[in-house]
Amino acid sequence: MPRHLISQLAHVELLTPRPDQTMWFFKELLGLEESAREGQSMYLRGWGEFFHHSLKVTEAKQSGLGHAAWRADGPEALEHAVAVIEQSGLGEGWIDGDLGHGRAYQFRNPEGHLNEIFWEVERYQTPQHLRTTIKNHPQKYVGRGAAVRRLDHVNMFTTNVKGCRQFYQELGFNYHEAILADGSDFEIGAFLSATNISHDLGIVGDTGGGKARLNHIAYWQDTREEVLRTADIMRDQDIFIEFGPTRHGISEAFFLYVYEPGGNRIEIYSGGYLNFAPDWGPIIWRISEHPILYWGGVPPASLTSRTYGTPPVEPPMS
Amino acid sequence: MPRHLISQLAHVELLTPRPDQTMWFFKELLGLEESAREGQSMYLRGWGEFFHHSLKVTEAKQSGLGHAAWRADGPEALEHAVAVIEQSGLGEGWIDGDLGHGRAYQFRNPEGHLNEIFWEVERYQTPQHLRTTIKNHPQKYVGRGAAVRRLDHVNMFTTNVKGCRQFYQELGFNYHEAILADGSDFEIGAFLSATNISHDLGIVGDTGGGKARLNHIAYWQDTREEVLRTADIMRDQDIFIEFGPTRHGISEAFFLYVYEPGGNRIEIYSGGYLNFAPDWGPIIWRISEHPILYWGGVPPASLTSRTYGTPPVEPPMS
Amino acid sequence: MPRHLISQLAHVELLTPRPDQTMWFFKELLGLEESAREGQSMYLRGWGEFFHHSLKVTEAKQSGLGHAAWRADGPEALEHAVAVIEQSGLGEGWIDGDLGHGRAYQFRNPEGHLNEIFWEVERYQTPQHLRTTIKNHPQKYVGRGAAVRRLDHVNMFTTNVKGCRQFYQELGFNYHEAILADGSDFEIGAFLSATNISHDLGIVGDTGGGKARLNHIAYWQDTREEVLRTADIMRDQDIFIEFGPTRHGISEAFFLYVYEPGGNRIEIYSGGYLNFAPDWGPIIWRISEHPILYWGGVPPASLTSRTYGTPPVEPPMS
Amino acid sequence: MPRHLISQLAHVELLTPRPDQTMWFFKELLGLEESAREGQSMYLRGWGEFFHHSLKVTEAKQSGLGHAAWRADGPEALEHAVAVIEQSGLGEGWIDGDLGHGRAYQFRNPEGHLNEIFWEVERYQTPQHLRTTIKNHPQKYVGRGAAVRRLDHVNMFTTNVKGCRQFYQELGFNYHEAILADGSDFEIGAFLSATNISHDLGIVGDTGGGKARLNHIAYWQDTREEVLRTADIMRDQDIFIEFGPTRHGISEAFFLYVYEPGGNRIEIYSGGYLNFAPDWGPIIWRISEHPILYWGGVPPASLTSRTYGTPPVEPPMS
Repeated sequence: MPRHLISQLAHVELLTPRPDQTMWFFKELLGLEESAREGQSMYLRGWGEFFHHSLKVTEAKQSGLGHAAWRADGPEALEHAVAVIEQSGLGEGWIDGDLGHGRAYQFRNPEGHLNEIFWEVERYQTPQHLRTTIKNHPQKYVGRGAAVRRLDHVNMFTTNVKGCRQFYQELGFNYHEAILADGSDFEIGAFLSATNISHDLGIVGDTGGGKARLNHIAYWQDTREEVLRTADIMRDQDIFIEFGPTRHGISEAFFLYVYEPGGNRIEIYSGGYLNFAPDWGPIIWRISEHPILYWGGVPPASLTSRTYGTPPVEPPMS
Repeated sequence: MPRHLISQLAHVELLTPRPDQTMWFFKELLGLEESAREGQSMYLRGWGEFFHHSLKVTEAKQSGLGHAAWRADGPEALEHAVAVIEQSGLGEGWIDGDLGHGRAYQFRNPEGHLNEIFWEVERYQTPQHLRTTIKNHPQKYVGRGAAVRRLDHVNMFTTNVKGCRQFYQELGFNYHEAILADGSDFEIGAFLSATNISHDLGIVGDTGGGKARLNHIAYWQDTREEVLRTADIMRDQDIFIEFGPTRHGISEAFFLYVYEPGGNRIEIYSGGYLNFAPDWGPIIWRISEHPILYWGGVPPASLTSRTYGTPPVEPPMS
Repeated sequence: MPRHLISQLAHVELLTPRPDQTMWFFKELLGLEESAREGQSMYLRGWGEFFHHSLKVTEAKQSGLGHAAWRADGPEALEHAVAVIEQSGLGEGWIDGDLGHGRAYQFRNPEGHLNEIFWEVERYQTPQHLRTTIKNHPQKYVGRGAAVRRLDHVNMFTTNVKGCRQFYQELGFNYHEAILADGSDFEIGAFLSATNISHDLGIVGDTGGGKARLNHIAYWQDTREEVLRTADIMRDQDIFIEFGPTRHGISEAFFLYVYEPGGNRIEIYSGGYLNFAPDWGPIIWRISEHPILYWGGVPPASLTSRTYGTPPVEPPMS
Repeated sequence: MPRHLISQLAHVELLTPRPDQTMWFFKELLGLEESAREGQSMYLRGWGEFFHHSLKVTEAKQSGLGHAAWRADGPEALEHAVAVIEQSGLGEGWIDGDLGHGRAYQFRNPEGHLNEIFWEVERYQTPQHLRTTIKNHPQKYVGRGAAVRRLDHVNMFTTNVKGCRQFYQELGFNYHEAILADGSDFEIGAFLSATNISHDLGIVGDTGGGKARLNHIAYWQDTREEVLRTADIMRDQDIFIEFGPTRHGISEAFFLYVYEPGGNRIEIYSGGYLNFAPDWGPIIWRISEHPILYWGGVPPASLTSRTYGTPPVEPPMS
């Protein structure tokens, strides 16, 4: 069986209790383009993305991850991937598709996050006013707000890092980096990649009492300079900056964490390495070795306690 | 058979009639680290590279490309790739290996450029003074000269663009972009990738009367700012700048072309897109659509005439 | 008498035969904010500017420079400056002022370009939707188009470089850099500064047969990265790129020359040195020493011939 | 009397109990060039500086500021400045000069920090191997370590912010920005400039029990990208990063605070505004309005408590 089953993270669905404000954030501040609206959902993409959408925003009672969608590496790879999933007993079955893609196979990882995988995808149809002479670009660069280029990765919050990590390895993800406890091999974080980027998928241990929650999704900017500019834009619009811009040890990335108005943590992300070797990693960082904040200092407690995710967890009855 | 046979461009061998000056260029100006010397050859790598070397510099009567070496995607992928090559009749057979890698299968593309493919590779052993707390880096960042990070791609000069392009597609390369003549489908350039970067391999039509020549090799820098700084360094050291820094239409890259003292064209390269879709491309640029110099203006005749490559071509007897 | 008579270039007035397209260029592509309209004129400023405007665009039969306006270093410095000008015999007298500033003294340099100097200035009144928590900024960063920050300098085209240069030196400008002919002291260009930037005022020899023409005005961006992005924006909107982005030898600046739809050459500019020493310069560049294009190559003939300026010169009757 | 008495911060003298390690820091990590050694002192400058030195490092029992040296705006401005100082009663008298400059007038500000002012200065004599074709640069760009370009500012720690601030205003400094307590006009910080940069001189309230201490000195890099790279270099060499890289509200600057091995706080600094208006400011930031850490989060206690400066303060006898 081929090693490459998945070609990329194709899109994520975010749930929000404040759809208007969430859309304002993604369109005006992050600078995404709207592709479509249908029912309670809106579909968006970055200026550098060739598919119909990379983000589906759906109104819901609570924030969180609707689902994460992976594109297979081809029609045969899709069949292989489904076979692997079905063997795990975590498959949920085929759906007809959605706006922007064809039939998809749904499944849950061991934590319960909903995932799907598909091959047939709809290309973005560039409207006249956005057509460009840059032939390898899907549209003109508009430069609204942060003007992020493309979806980079999803980070799932889980009570079972090891189980989830092994599940995705079965699907052909490379295990690039790990955060382990000091003095034991307890897994706190795992960073995996189906491609040459440092990670398409982060898995981080949730200590907040939730189940199948979202840690964050990340959108990409081409330069660290743009991340710095984005921080000014966010701060000037009263968007809460949880952390950054600063640099991870993990992934080498330069990043900024904010909360969109619906409560979901959004990362703006640049830099980081490419890896081309299928037999590289995992790089092991003990939690005391500054995997999150390489340059030193104290990250905010909302991060280090690993309690903030979406949906929020109800405080227990006393 | 799996689609992914090759995981990356592993190294190139450059020939030079001026080995001392060529080594000065690569070590002091590009900022590569020397890994080893043996016989007439020296081995170098960028600060971000995990293998023993990405460049072999060999003293020779004339400049040019010694060979280009590809790493397979795994031991089975190596066998598959060799089977594909043998079917083409262009295989040359196994060699025991070289410093830095194990046994390799040699072959020539339809133009005659020597290539090899292998799987077993030697990791870079970091000396004590270069060990780093950045656990996903192979060494400390030293910052000498341009301080390029890694080998990016090789560009082969050929009298048979179409034949070479098809040959590498058989080996699983994706065909990302094409330069065609105006008014016909004559192929002037082809840009292919075995990975998510815009191209590992360029193929450009040679009109200078040579055979199996080198157009250029490219080393990567993380930011366009570094390419700008590199131009200052090169100019201040009297290295001939043929072109740039400016921006290609093809590949979206920001680049600088210089000639190293041995005569080989070297590209310093940053930016450019990542592509994750196995069914993307080829993007077709007609030669009049500014594939080389997107922003306009007139590139130097040495480029547009497609005559400068290495080794030089003897002027015909008159 | 104090050495510092002028504190800065306050604004320039551009003439355009195509006012609608010129305004579209400055507002949507350069990203200036409109402050006011009155009569045939429109007033604009960059997001980082504290005064009412830095650009006045006036409809006219022909393109060119309406006037350049300097702010004195204080009310006494204004009187000193006027005394210097009157001694030269080139004063034109006081006017009551204009939108955005108080009474001003008009004068012509030896070539005939109209200049004015004033002290009283109107501060920009930030509208509610642009107020910012960045207390040392006049407004929110909006990020429309190139989003240039501030006016940087004006470059006057003249048939009398030496005379104009000496005239402005009398007004306290420091003479930072010079372009001289090879083999003689004939002055081709002069770059002067009333401040710590490399030049507020360029003076370049016009060989096109015009009189008192404009070579260009320059707007500033904080990073070279932004200049590169601006080139993409301009090219994608079919704005003619005459030259760049590349790097001057003179001033160390990274720049891009375009023609706005009215025909005036506009420079987008970043980098360059600061100078703090009142006794520095002039640095002498012979024309053969690459003062314009430091990295090598051939600038466009429209620049090197020194014929393109505004207004255009009528071809002679034959 | 002219308003401009001082043209720039010319150099600072740092005291260090660990001269060898301090020199290693400034030469290898910050990338300064050594100009001379004499007695217990070593003289250094950045690659972009035209004077003999901008830093004098002197071996001493304790860390701290030896003196800060200002260059007058001309020979007459020097006389004017001395007259102002003598009127304040804080003058100490003329010295013959030092390596790199002529006779200087010494004085103390109201806190007691030693300052000097001079006019005659020695230009840097470029050695053969560092001569450059970039005619407006004093030497080749070498790129060692952080490769800072020039001294930017000195920040003095004081128990009398208001008195010191007023003293320097008498010398013609513009008062650009202020940090005031909440609910009173008690001055916590003052940022003044003799030039167009945001500040040459910071004055910050010392609550640690010291007298006439140093808060920090700052060296300039041209881009924020370089500051980010510098953070990697510092961290990888086990230099303590106190804070950053991040962005001040005050001055708009992007910065990094480290402690050099002798204990003095060193800022690496880029970005920030230029101001050309002599009547701009002071911008008032209340301490609760994020003047230090614009993007939010919690700065380290060593900064917010305003206790860390050099020399260290002896803990009181108990």
